[in-house]
Amino acid sequence: MQKLTVLPLKQIRIDDSFWNKYVKLVPDVIIPHQWDILNDKVEDAEPSHSIKNFEITANLKEGYFHGVVFQDTDVAKWLEAVAFSLASRPDTSLEETADEVISLIGKAQAADGYLNTYFTIKEPTLRFTNLKEGHELYTAGHMIEAAVAYYKTTGKDEFLKIMIRNADLICEVFSENNNSKGYPGHQEIELALIKLYEVTNDSKYLAQAKAFIDRRGASPNYFIEEEKHPEYKNIFPELMKYTPIYSQSHLPVRKQHKAEGHAVRAVYMYCAMADLAYEYQDQELLGSCERLWNNMVYRRMYITGSIGSSGILERFTTDYDLPNNSNYAETCASIGLALFGRRMTQITRDSRYMDIVEKVLYNTVLSGIAMDGKSFFYVNPLEVWPDNCIESTSKEHVKPIRQKWFGVACCPPNIARTLASLGEYVYFASENTFWVNLFLSGSASARMKGKEITITTVTNFPQEGKTNFIIEGNEELDLTMAIRIPEYVKDYRIWLEGVELKNTVSDKGYLYLELHGETSIELEFSIPARFVHANPFVREDSGKVAIEKGPLVYCLEEVDNGSNLPAIYIDTKQPIKEEFCENLLGGTTVLTVSGRRILNTNWQEEELYKETELVWEAGVFTAVPYCYWGNRRTGEMLVWMKELC
Amino acid sequence: MQKLTVLPLKQIRIDDSFWNKYVKLVPDVIIPHQWDILNDKVEDAEPSHSIKNFEITANLKEGYFHGVVFQDTDVAKWLEAVAFSLASRPDTSLEETADEVISLIGKAQAADGYLNTYFTIKEPTLRFTNLKEGHELYTAGHMIEAAVAYYKTTGKDEFLKIMIRNADLICEVFSENNNSKGYPGHQEIELALIKLYEVTNDSKYLAQAKAFIDRRGASPNYFIEEEKHPEYKNIFPELMKYTPIYSQSHLPVRKQHKAEGHAVRAVYMYCAMADLAYEYQDQELLGSCERLWNNMVYRRMYITGSIGSSGILERFTTDYDLPNNSNYAETCASIGLALFGRRMTQITRDSRYMDIVEKVLYNTVLSGIAMDGKSFFYVNPLEVWPDNCIESTSKEHVKPIRQKWFGVACCPPNIARTLASLGEYVYFASENTFWVNLFLSGSASARMKGKEITITTVTNFPQEGKTNFIIEGNEELDLTMAIRIPEYVKDYRIWLEGVELKNTVSDKGYLYLELHGETSIELEFSIPARFVHANPFVREDSGKVAIEKGPLVYCLEEVDNGSNLPAIYIDTKQPIKEEFCENLLGGTTVLTVSGRRILNTNWQEEELYKETELVWEAGVFTAVPYCYWGNRRTGEMLVWMKELC
Repeated sequence: MQKLTVLPLKQIRIDDSFWNKYVKLVPDVIIPHQWDILNDKVEDAEPSHSIKNFEITANLKEGYFHGVVFQDTDVAKWLEAVAFSLASRPDTSLEETADEVISLIGKAQAADGYLNTYFTIKEPTLRFTNLKEGHELYTAGHMIEAAVAYYKTTGKDEFLKIMIRNADLICEVFSENNNSKGYPGHQEIELALIKLYEVTNDSKYLAQAKAFIDRRGASPNYFIEEEKHPEYKNIFPELMKYTPIYSQSHLPVRKQHKAEGHAVRAVYMYCAMADLAYEYQDQELLGSCERLWNNMVYRRMYITGSIGSSGILERFTTDYDLPNNSNYAETCASIGLALFGRRMTQITRDSRYMDIVEKVLYNTVLSGIAMDGKSFFYVNPLEVWPDNCIESTSKEHVKPIRQKWFGVACCPPNIARTLASLGEYVYFASENTFWVNLFLSGSASARMKGKEITITTVTNFPQEGKTNFIIEGNEELDLTMAIRIPEYVKDYRIWLEGVELKNTVSDKGYLYLELHGETSIELEFSIPARFVHANPFVREDSGKVAIEKGPLVYCLEEVDNGSNLPAIYIDTKQPIKEEFCENLLGGTTVLTVSGRRILNTNWQEEELYKETELVWEAGVFTAVPYCYWGNRRTGEMLVWMKELC
Repeated sequence: MQKLTVLPLKQIRIDDSFWNKYVKLVPDVIIPHQWDILNDKVEDAEPSHSIKNFEITANLKEGYFHGVVFQDTDVAKWLEAVAFSLASRPDTSLEETADEVISLIGKAQAADGYLNTYFTIKEPTLRFTNLKEGHELYTAGHMIEAAVAYYKTTGKDEFLKIMIRNADLICEVFSENNNSKGYPGHQEIELALIKLYEVTNDSKYLAQAKAFIDRRGASPNYFIEEEKHPEYKNIFPELMKYTPIYSQSHLPVRKQHKAEGHAVRAVYMYCAMADLAYEYQDQELLGSCERLWNNMVYRRMYITGSIGSSGILERFTTDYDLPNNSNYAETCASIGLALFGRRMTQITRDSRYMDIVEKVLYNTVLSGIAMDGKSFFYVNPLEVWPDNCIESTSKEHVKPIRQKWFGVACCPPNIARTLASLGEYVYFASENTFWVNLFLSGSASARMKGKEITITTVTNFPQEGKTNFIIEGNEELDLTMAIRIPEYVKDYRIWLEGVELKNTVSDKGYLYLELHGETSIELEFSIPARFVHANPFVREDSGKVAIEKGPLVYCLEEVDNGSNLPAIYIDTKQPIKEEFCENLLGGTTVLTVSGRRILNTNWQEEELYKETELVWEAGVFTAVPYCYWGNRRTGEMLVWMKELC
């Protein structure tokens, strides 16, 4: 098997009418705002204490550790976002700040390479004794990812060297020679070690990642054995009734056929499995990745690309169990799903993976962040009624309003690093082929057959289906363009130098175009808004319909349609009207549909159940992109609408 | 205000085709089975340890306390059920066993009257220091209720004297003189003290009940203050994030307008409020009872008479928030609702309260127990899909199969005492009026105007709407019969001595008949099966229909209708067919309805969402009484069915 190359972020420029709203927030708002939060300078956000934890560990300040065991990862993900952002927009002052943080991290590192503020300050004698809950390897993984990103952008190796020392310690402690059987309670280190291998070429890191993956699920279960040690100390009360399936350690990974347990743990693990399948040319492991992918996206994924349908423990449940108003559907889990899907596309060149990646990026990643870049959703429901989102009830995890910051703050910085690295999803390259996965305006360059090729994309997608590509630098080359045709495209036309092409060749969702010096491609997708059903096994969506346009899932909001959205029925025999509203939500295509709603005009105050006819009122209902929900005022939201039958 | 009298159980005989199935289980199965459980003699049930706790406390055995803080109440509720059962079916051997238990309880009582095995064995220095969680007053309340019941049935006062000593201690510790501001974290003692007052005529107990109710919700909050004491010790981890609303201590009871917090706590409190309203002729308090009742039953109650829509913390949430597949809807909460409704009927003579009591008894109380009397539901969902009832997920509290016994075993003995005291709901008496609330075969006697009046009821309700009453002993009396006309009765006819009456007088749902020596009444209700809607504000039931016949709510089960019940649509324009099936579920009326269902024939394995037409199949669907669900084989169950529109 071969693997398509992700283009370095430095070679990619994004300037797109749809994405600018969010991508520009990264350097302008999110990175400075999150920097203030890491330093506890935002008054109405929960204190982070992350930088202070490092200062205390480095003996620069006095004090205690505050936060959760993986508090360090907030700094790691911020640094990774900074690295990605600097790649597309250099900023000397920001780079200086990052260098200072890196220097601080170095000072917080122990002589033997150990680096973790929680255990160093709070439990110095308990290093690596509670892999199940301690998150030391998870935290190290995020720090390694950040160090690799920073090295790639800046070429500076201070951070990389810090993390190499840390990785060397981990490789020693968890080596086969040491007869270690340990592996992380929350996967992440595996994919990070593979990234470290990619920049250092030291196969020790790759082998350690493989060992972690191969050991997982061995019998007897490591985490159950670990609890028997006298020094074992429970950290999270909610994890006391821990079962191995929660951390995907119920079976060896090659024997896992269903996406189980905590959703973020699962997808981070699948990423490493895909990487290892390629690195070791391991078809069996790739087969496991495909099976797990298929189970996850065809049985256990919301139409918005979110996963993890149980509010309790943020986990998968069973096939087709997809409740819309009580799910967890964590933003981080969708980010992990996108990372996994990108890897699978690189290896298989099958655009069905990228169909899901695109769904995730346009829906759940963006719903996770407010349009001002300052508040966030962990939980991404598909149906919200603010009145019943009450503390200490079954809906306590569902928030009708994005939150300023969180005590457990994994999602906000994860969104930041994802938006900052959006370019990594757009284009791929192989020896003589240039791949276009996503449709957004901007440009990219790649060195192909010794020449610098530049591609400039101009589009108004997904508002319109038309995209123009200008290729430069390929005059003397035979080059192949592989353009993804998304699964939802009903029909498309393509012109090369103004001449329409017929009988084009496509394979696994990619259209292959042989270019012999041609420089202009025009592509037109037919992407009208459409009604979509769920598989009838999805009991919660039975009798309901969703509306999509291109990759965007739409929803009803109370601000447009009044309250009691579940009383609305859509007439799917009537057409969906599309209109671009310049002044709404930063400019967006709004959809209107016809139908009717149940009225309560024949009900008295003190009537809850009775024999009566339904009273209806005809209506026209307005749908907006799901990613924008909750950006106007607090109210109900609904993706799956009842259908007149 | 006046109060109708509940007839003593000794004067009531039940021999009814519908109720015998369950009522006979009490002495034949439930009481002996639960006795074995209390003594840890049932192998596949969770150990109770309840009797052993008393033996240890009485220094008759060595050992430790096992169970929850209110483990003693299992013994109390069992004794109360025994007392009720002995009233209608004397049993010397059972009475001897009960006497032995009572003697044991006496030995477990401290010299000062204190009686609680948890605190005596485990936390002897922490008596009454954690009212919020310690359940000492709750436990005492159930013991007092049992003692009163046992005294009423047997005339023996050993148990009553034990509990008087205990109540005296409580009245001293929590007296106004003592400047006590305490009140129970789980209400129950209040209604029990009122019962104790009723048999002893000692108004001290009534006053103490009033004090507990009046103190509740005073500022500063007692439970928050209590936590500040140095000896305070948290008992339930899930109650660490306690807010006063959970225990209805957020406001003084007279200022509470909505049913809030833990449902069982709420309804037990409302019972005491109703009792006190009558005893003190307190119209303001009665007004509070009416407001809380109205909020609860018209905004926060399931059609099955269950309450508490949040799985987490078994509590109320907000108006019209009634999810069907994730609710708690605890059996005990419905029992408390019936107890409250009975009191409100006694005081107001308004049958709208009894409409709800009947709904509770015929639906949620019976769904809580298997037809073999040996397994039980705590949680009573209205929609179940066994596949997603998974441990450590948001549906972990929902069980598709009744459980043998529970570690926290409040519901099983509560069902036992409710079935054993069913007679208390059927008839009431006032000076010259005999009240019939429920329609079931049997007889009752009451002393009215110095004469012994007997009424014999013969009916096949709710299978049929016809009921015959024979009155004896009233030959020389002018007597009034008050017969409840349930709200669901479309039409009725009534004959006195074979002559049809026209222009009958009814008031607040009771038909008033003046009898001048007549002895025969025939009553015929029109109670065909009917389709019922929920108020459109109930978002979870929007577009759905339920089926009821008389007081019985019906449901679809997988065993009759195949899997994927949410894919079924009912055509409410078609009639409901009724058929009595002798051999099904001990003999029951089965309903069939027409409609159609969504098929998945146009869906492939690996398709979760797509543009497609719905494929339908016409069908006839079978509904059985909700109370019988889960008595055949494990499968899906559904009360609220989609309606073709």
